[in-house]
Amino acid sequence: MRNPIVDQNFLLHSNVAETLYHEYASKMPIIDYHCHIEAQEIAENRIFKNLTQIWLEGDHYKWRAMRANGISEDYITGKATDWEKFQKWAETVPYTMRNPLYHWTHLELKKPFGIEDILNKHSAKDIYNTASQKLSSGELSVENILKSFNVQKICTTNDPIDALKWHQHIVQSNMELQVSMAWRPDRAMDVRDPKEFNSYIERLEEISSNSISSYSDYLEVLKSRHNYFHERGCRLADHGLEFPFPVDTTTEQEISAIFSKIRLGKNLSEGDQQKMMSSLLYEFSIWNFEKGWVQQYHVGAFRDVNKKGVRIIGKACGFDSIADFNYATSMGIFLNRLEECNKLTKTIIYNLNPKDNEMVATMMGNFQDGSVPGKMQYGSGWWFLDQKDGIEKQINTLSNQGLLSRFIGMLTDSRSFLSYSRHDYFRRILCNIIGNDVENGELPNDMKFLGRMVQDISYNNANDYFDF
Amino acid sequence: MRNPIVDQNFLLHSNVAETLYHEYASKMPIIDYHCHIEAQEIAENRIFKNLTQIWLEGDHYKWRAMRANGISEDYITGKATDWEKFQKWAETVPYTMRNPLYHWTHLELKKPFGIEDILNKHSAKDIYNTASQKLSSGELSVENILKSFNVQKICTTNDPIDALKWHQHIVQSNMELQVSMAWRPDRAMDVRDPKEFNSYIERLEEISSNSISSYSDYLEVLKSRHNYFHERGCRLADHGLEFPFPVDTTTEQEISAIFSKIRLGKNLSEGDQQKMMSSLLYEFSIWNFEKGWVQQYHVGAFRDVNKKGVRIIGKACGFDSIADFNYATSMGIFLNRLEECNKLTKTIIYNLNPKDNEMVATMMGNFQDGSVPGKMQYGSGWWFLDQKDGIEKQINTLSNQGLLSRFIGMLTDSRSFLSYSRHDYFRRILCNIIGNDVENGELPNDMKFLGRMVQDISYNNANDYFDF
Amino acid sequence: MRNPIVDQNFLLHSNVAETLYHEYASKMPIIDYHCHIEAQEIAENRIFKNLTQIWLEGDHYKWRAMRANGISEDYITGKATDWEKFQKWAETVPYTMRNPLYHWTHLELKKPFGIEDILNKHSAKDIYNTASQKLSSGELSVENILKSFNVQKICTTNDPIDALKWHQHIVQSNMELQVSMAWRPDRAMDVRDPKEFNSYIERLEEISSNSISSYSDYLEVLKSRHNYFHERGCRLADHGLEFPFPVDTTTEQEISAIFSKIRLGKNLSEGDQQKMMSSLLYEFSIWNFEKGWVQQYHVGAFRDVNKKGVRIIGKACGFDSIADFNYATSMGIFLNRLEECNKLTKTIIYNLNPKDNEMVATMMGNFQDGSVPGKMQYGSGWWFLDQKDGIEKQINTLSNQGLLSRFIGMLTDSRSFLSYSRHDYFRRILCNIIGNDVENGELPNDMKFLGRMVQDISYNNANDYFDF
Repeated sequence: MRNPIVDQNFLLHSNVAETLYHEYASKMPIIDYHCHIEAQEIAENRIFKNLTQIWLEGDHYKWRAMRANGISEDYITGKATDWEKFQKWAETVPYTMRNPLYHWTHLELKKPFGIEDILNKHSAKDIYNTASQKLSSGELSVENILKSFNVQKICTTNDPIDALKWHQHIVQSNMELQVSMAWRPDRAMDVRDPKEFNSYIERLEEISSNSISSYSDYLEVLKSRHNYFHERGCRLADHGLEFPFPVDTTTEQEISAIFSKIRLGKNLSEGDQQKMMSSLLYEFSIWNFEKGWVQQYHVGAFRDVNKKGVRIIGKACGFDSIADFNYATSMGIFLNRLEECNKLTKTIIYNLNPKDNEMVATMMGNFQDGSVPGKMQYGSGWWFLDQKDGIEKQINTLSNQGLLSRFIGMLTDSRSFLSYSRHDYFRRILCNIIGNDVENGELPNDMKFLGRMVQDISYNNANDYFDF
Repeated sequence: MRNPIVDQNFLLHSNVAETLYHEYASKMPIIDYHCHIEAQEIAENRIFKNLTQIWLEGDHYKWRAMRANGISEDYITGKATDWEKFQKWAETVPYTMRNPLYHWTHLELKKPFGIEDILNKHSAKDIYNTASQKLSSGELSVENILKSFNVQKICTTNDPIDALKWHQHIVQSNMELQVSMAWRPDRAMDVRDPKEFNSYIERLEEISSNSISSYSDYLEVLKSRHNYFHERGCRLADHGLEFPFPVDTTTEQEISAIFSKIRLGKNLSEGDQQKMMSSLLYEFSIWNFEKGWVQQYHVGAFRDVNKKGVRIIGKACGFDSIADFNYATSMGIFLNRLEECNKLTKTIIYNLNPKDNEMVATMMGNFQDGSVPGKMQYGSGWWFLDQKDGIEKQINTLSNQGLLSRFIGMLTDSRSFLSYSRHDYFRRILCNIIGNDVENGELPNDMKFLGRMVQDISYNNANDYFDF
Repeated sequence: MRNPIVDQNFLLHSNVAETLYHEYASKMPIIDYHCHIEAQEIAENRIFKNLTQIWLEGDHYKWRAMRANGISEDYITGKATDWEKFQKWAETVPYTMRNPLYHWTHLELKKPFGIEDILNKHSAKDIYNTASQKLSSGELSVENILKSFNVQKICTTNDPIDALKWHQHIVQSNMELQVSMAWRPDRAMDVRDPKEFNSYIERLEEISSNSISSYSDYLEVLKSRHNYFHERGCRLADHGLEFPFPVDTTTEQEISAIFSKIRLGKNLSEGDQQKMMSSLLYEFSIWNFEKGWVQQYHVGAFRDVNKKGVRIIGKACGFDSIADFNYATSMGIFLNRLEECNKLTKTIIYNLNPKDNEMVATMMGNFQDGSVPGKMQYGSGWWFLDQKDGIEKQINTLSNQGLLSRFIGMLTDSRSFLSYSRHDYFRRILCNIIGNDVENGELPNDMKFLGRMVQDISYNNANDYFDF
């Protein structure tokens, strides 16, 4: 049976779209400015033994689909063999029709593996063998995979306690690929569990060789880590916000008292938690400005909902979903607070609940200041929204409420080296949307400008926006 | 004038869609696993006197449209004759163009009445006479109507105090149709008005021949009703939740005290109301698990908004709309509480506010456990969302966030025997969506799998999912 | 390069759409029942010196786009010359592709200027000269511009303290155009800042020649202004609500005490602010009913988010965005309170956050009472939603939840005399939606009814609905 997903004109429904994609977008390199790849695997140029290792290990999207398909956990994260797990995944694939997994799966088999067959239980064996051979032979080592996707820059996501050893290895190697990192101090802000927070502080004391006995010590050590990251090329921060943006302004005295309390192992009230997180996020945002970094806010995940699942299988294993709290007011107040002291740096905000699309997109417009095109970015469809429908909605919302032409475009947000096909997916969707507009007479047939525009969104805008 | 709605390819815009519908979906019987039909009318094989009786009495969708069209209440729920009411409805019909009523109206005239004309003030008389004759002659008795729609199973919705007499009649008759019921204890949870609550308890005491003087008595009697329903074939519960899912866990002692208070006729604080409802919903959900039932939660209606309308005309007469409270957190905590004690049964959640689509759909994914395909179901477009746009959005959200292939599909949620055409409507929309994907090269042209998939969603999945 | 936006069939993608637009909709005059035009400029038949004056001064949509495009404020609201500002706008225009500005820009150049070229930095000079000449020569004076758009009635928006002098001038002139006004007492309700509130009261005392020392004085003076407006032809009120609809009912004694407090210059608690606004909005709504006015509620703006921007550049200069508070419950209670005393007048509600579309549209249905077609109106896409996607969503939501045929249609909400092309834009979108439905077989090809329907929505419904 013909596999339409590997067709060269997949998702391109007009001549204009085909031209925009093939002659403009597809030629651009990839800057993956936000992902969760391990620098170590790049530095060591990891060789994967088989397709299950690179494809199913750690992919909670596939795990959720398999659980929904009635597959026992043994075959998902359990003790079954790699081949057995793959088999169950292959059986599940047809049942994912209309889920983004169905497209991703076949795009990833096509590139880098060159496999154009449809994956199901019948084709599973051949596909597994072919792909696993290319992996284990080193033909598709990490470095070769990245080359095949024309990846030019990658920005990993790292906790302040990370020594960034593997990033140094990469710099010292003669790899063409540029690998930078984003500073993500989520754990440094998470004061919900005193025990976890204090053990985090201990690790921070170790890596910094400083003792932390007060809030100002804490800030000092964190700032030294911010400096440390900066020296190693970091130009980007990332903040996961699972609660309304903090609102209040508190005195340093008050925060110091709250800090002392949690250091004694005492639980904080919800109000005090908010105050602490508020103060920290504010400080971080100031540092981000002072160093000329870009900052990202990821807003609205509801993590660890199924606590038994998290206990038995782990965090980030498919037990997270979408929150629905309101945050227009608090986000507005927070951004305004930074703007008032002239310390609002270039900022990208991603929302996880699509009901907030227009709210966030218009919020960004309040703080565009003419200093640079697209200073405030309404971020690409994130996580559950990183699929055709979500991508289209993000593009349409941004188009209606801001300037699509100044959009810095796609990132993978992924742990997997095979996810780079999502850039291809995104570019096809983008070219198709613009192509439709031209075909419908909603845009002029100005291929020179539109070609440049899709190249900007695919690569140039991000290249100009980020300082790495 | 040609009536396009009765065309055999209505809503089918591709060859694939036509094939999927005509060769696969349309042949499947109907399982209406959630509706508000009266079992008595089936048991007695009711003969309706005229089209107004079966079509306008009790249909608040039509009533709202007529009010919006400037029709006086006399002709809606008032003293006008059946013919006069029909006349006003017929005059209103053209003004409902683009409202689902316009499609439903003509689909229902086509089947079961065989009328293909467009309804308006000119055609009103003929259509009324033709349809009324088929009804009053018994040619279209309830049983014959259901046969004409190929309805195999119906699941009514019943209060715990219902003796289920008419369900017994049906079992004892030699009707082919299977009629089960869902246990819906909404009134048993509604502690907002002490007087209504206590009078409900009195009726419960009567039917159970038990006195209820404590919370544990109350639970015991309700559980005996749960058992009673189970013995009569009930395998499904249904809960209307017009407030955020309850969050807190309270001691039985505390609940007992609250129960005693309301039994004395005293008003409960909002906090105490939440605690009571929380405890009851938790207990019910445990029972649902213990008996292997499926449970449904209908979340987010805002009922009885226009209180004068309710006072004069009644409840469920068109004075309800869509609420907008947030409930991701409380729903997550509630489902997790059941999961933690391994007592989360198969569950369907329907949301009324479409802003919650993605939140609810991803929430279900947190609790898929691989035990059975599609254990946690993101329910079909409900009430105000049960129209083409709402159905498409539900299907697309489910597709993107879960497995459409495992969806248990459509129900009528209706009080009317003519609403079975909505299954046809749904199936056409489903086939058209999949057909478009194939035509656009987003799905392979695998008619065997896709044909099976639409049959599964139309019938097989529900048949496997429910134990009645 | 061909400019598709000036094509006579722009946005019309079917024969039916073309017929509906060219033979029905386009011929209807315009009633702009809600805008922010200055009556003075009509009365004086203002002559604009150049294109920048009429097009860029005061247009915060364009300003936001320019800021997002990295243009310095000098060229937006600063000291650059009119030509320099235009140049920067022209350079920005290509970067607005897919933003509504791109369409509006070219529609406005076409009509009234007759310019069909695409605006960019190359064409800027010619376009600026041509348009400016037509403006400064008086060929396109305000009156002539309005004639060219076939504008029949305009309803401005005025504060109660407005003496309506210019409206009187217009009445006394022999201008064919009818100019009415809406009473918008937002400042009279805004008790957040005691100083501003008291200075507002002083102005009210002046214009009414009454002293205001108590809440009842305040109401009396405001009511006299309501009467004053009524005598001058006002038949419409407008209320901007940036907070949940007020809920509580308070005693007059309590309100009097709150009023005395703020009159002493003291800050009110948030609760007291709500009580005061609640009471005032209730009184206003009663007056609106008593005089047979229509009332509009604009709900959900989040104004003045970037406070530095507001301080330096001003209010309504592009620093506002979309709020996300919940208000189903409070809106329901408020409307019910009016309904209970039989004083709910014809009402239009506009929501700014599209997540609330279905909630608001179904809310209106609760209070349709059959007294007049479309008594309760779900308002047209407002502000950030006044673009193709927003207009389509409003039309679709209204279609699904109410009666599109009874919709009073489009308004400009604009400060600019060039914005009348938005009526054309709206009509094309409307005709295209209906045309698609006919082409897809979802509506009968009943051109007589559908033609009348688009004429009703374009003009007749508003003409019947409003009493001016």
